[in-house]
Amino acid sequence: MIVAPDSFKGSLSATEASSAMAAAVRAVLPAADLGIYPMADGGEGTVEALSGLQGQGGKVEVHSVATIDAIGRPCTARYALDEAGCGIVEVAQASGLPQVADHLSPLVASSRGTGLVIRDALERGARRILLGLGGSACTDGGAGVLRALGARLLDTRGSEVDDGGSALRQIDRIDLGGLSDAARAARWQLACDVDNPLTGPRGAAAVFGPQKGAAPQDVAILDEGLAHFAEVLARDVGPLDGDAPGMGAAGGLPAGLVAAFGAELVPGAALIADAVGLSDQLGRADLVLTGEGSFDSQSLSGKVVGTLGALAHQARVPVLVVAGAVKVRRDELAGSGIVGMRSIADGPRTADQLMAQASELLQAATADAVATFALGAGWLRGAGWLRGAGRE
Amino acid sequence: MIVAPDSFKGSLSATEASSAMAAAVRAVLPAADLGIYPMADGGEGTVEALSGLQGQGGKVEVHSVATIDAIGRPCTARYALDEAGCGIVEVAQASGLPQVADHLSPLVASSRGTGLVIRDALERGARRILLGLGGSACTDGGAGVLRALGARLLDTRGSEVDDGGSALRQIDRIDLGGLSDAARAARWQLACDVDNPLTGPRGAAAVFGPQKGAAPQDVAILDEGLAHFAEVLARDVGPLDGDAPGMGAAGGLPAGLVAAFGAELVPGAALIADAVGLSDQLGRADLVLTGEGSFDSQSLSGKVVGTLGALAHQARVPVLVVAGAVKVRRDELAGSGIVGMRSIADGPRTADQLMAQASELLQAATADAVATFALGAGWLRGAGWLRGAGRE
Repeated sequence: MIVAPDSFKGSLSATEASSAMAAAVRAVLPAADLGIYPMADGGEGTVEALSGLQGQGGKVEVHSVATIDAIGRPCTARYALDEAGCGIVEVAQASGLPQVADHLSPLVASSRGTGLVIRDALERGARRILLGLGGSACTDGGAGVLRALGARLLDTRGSEVDDGGSALRQIDRIDLGGLSDAARAARWQLACDVDNPLTGPRGAAAVFGPQKGAAPQDVAILDEGLAHFAEVLARDVGPLDGDAPGMGAAGGLPAGLVAAFGAELVPGAALIADAVGLSDQLGRADLVLTGEGSFDSQSLSGKVVGTLGALAHQARVPVLVVAGAVKVRRDELAGSGIVGMRSIADGPRTADQLMAQASELLQAATADAVATFALGAGWLRGAGWLRGAGRE
Repeated sequence: MIVAPDSFKGSLSATEASSAMAAAVRAVLPAADLGIYPMADGGEGTVEALSGLQGQGGKVEVHSVATIDAIGRPCTARYALDEAGCGIVEVAQASGLPQVADHLSPLVASSRGTGLVIRDALERGARRILLGLGGSACTDGGAGVLRALGARLLDTRGSEVDDGGSALRQIDRIDLGGLSDAARAARWQLACDVDNPLTGPRGAAAVFGPQKGAAPQDVAILDEGLAHFAEVLARDVGPLDGDAPGMGAAGGLPAGLVAAFGAELVPGAALIADAVGLSDQLGRADLVLTGEGSFDSQSLSGKVVGTLGALAHQARVPVLVVAGAVKVRRDELAGSGIVGMRSIADGPRTADQLMAQASELLQAATADAVATFALGAGWLRGAGWLRGAGRE
């Protein structure tokens, strides 16, 4: 049996959700062979999810490093490094939106802090970089990351331009002479759950700029900056297709990394499932238990729950979902791999109440789902596994 | 598979709840052999529950008769008469509390209206009377029922005393000369879900009087009336043990009926389960689905859900509960026969929202419980029964 929830946003990290669900399985089926995989989709919570492996014998080190936030203030960020040399970094740690919510500066916000984190991972021997793209505050096309790794972005006078999306318009040429060899040698994968292109009406600036504080005139400046940066990258650094789905993620961050390192854009949840070894284990499982705060129709496309459903469907293993709120109709489950879905709510409750008691409620709902499944499976009678449920 | 819910108080009758749950089973397992038994515990909803059998080929006639409410105002009451000659009557129909909520009169409220309903059933050939005791407004020891069936309660001057509990104190003797032969010949069963004695601190007046509007001095009067009536009954009519559990139900109504007709006091839900044929079917079922508005620790003792659990436990059939609110911890289920319990809530919802959408939510939650059970049972793969849930 596999337990692999996403975080329950606002109440439980994926690790906490995993603990509650695993406790439920153990209470009902003490003899169950249990694989626990806190999940994430590459955005916020990815490092947390992967660091959760530590307790289970998975060899993942979590490092805290001094870096800067999107507007250059000192901060600390965490990343994970697994035994295979994969550095797991999320843009949301150093260059995230919440950290600069008090001082949104869309034109100058930079991804440099994330670059510093990656540099640390490379210095510790990472040969692969798995970068989660969700939750960024910047729209700089990845310029900040490249600069932290040694690239120089120069204006017509040969001076380095300022950090941030606005200054991208001043770049005349890119000097890769100082670019880190480790960064060049690494395999880069960018975990992404949007399909927006780099520029234009569906691009990084137009779609995600406003939530980062960009007024309409700022959006125009940032879009222009990304378009210009993409041209210079293509000329000086390497090939890049700004129209490729996902290039508009994290403020266009893929642009610089695709051009410089041939980074691949991959769906986040599937990538994490691979990274933690879940994909390999699916074939041996009889049931997958997953969950998230709000299970809605978006969950079925690209998010953790939908991705697990699809992977499990291929492996012909059924999936049960336990969520804070269930907003999917039963007929929408067709073809999803998901067979059961239930809320943690045990009656009339406010959202605040559900969040405050999320752990206990998740455990109770999971125990019940497992007991109902086990009941059908006849394990009750056969193995006497079901405790405290009125059957000898 | 058996579907046998109680009513969801405030939102769904047992018949409506049964329809929603049955629709869910049919959607998930179209080939399931389904027995549908709307349930009740003998109180309010019993007639409704039994009349629900009509649609399924059960031969139950439901009659509406003109009668009077607890304070003598004209009203209409429904009762059921099955093909075996069992009249199913509930005190709550004619002598119920809601009907006189605008004019609570604990001292004069009478069970006479219920007696008139029973008379109608006897006139139509009932040879057995199953009387549900919950929800009464009167505390008259069943004097009103006896009088409607021909008994005369006389004072020292040979005049009939007034209706109601207060006047019980004036009874000097009881004249059964005019008592209905059909009533004498019938088998009487009183469906009861409390164990209070007739009088004293745990008696009908002390415990249930206040909710019927009795002030402390009224409670004393009523308790005195019941005690006196019991003495006269024992002397003039027949043996009766006022301390027997349940004698204090429905304002002491069992007192008169035990003395006059040797009525049996029986646990309501178990009686209904027998009456509708559910007890007979349990042994052949693989699963029982039940439910109620609020599943709490009281549910496990004497109520429909707990009774079904106990009966099913004996028959070694597991029970799943779907409720508006679940207030039972998993460890409380030990020995109850109940293996699964879940709320109809699909996320944060107010009680009003749950009640307004109770039918759809009950159907969705039941479908999910059945799908999870069926999943475990492997029926999915074997029989292809599970529709729209992502498995071929």
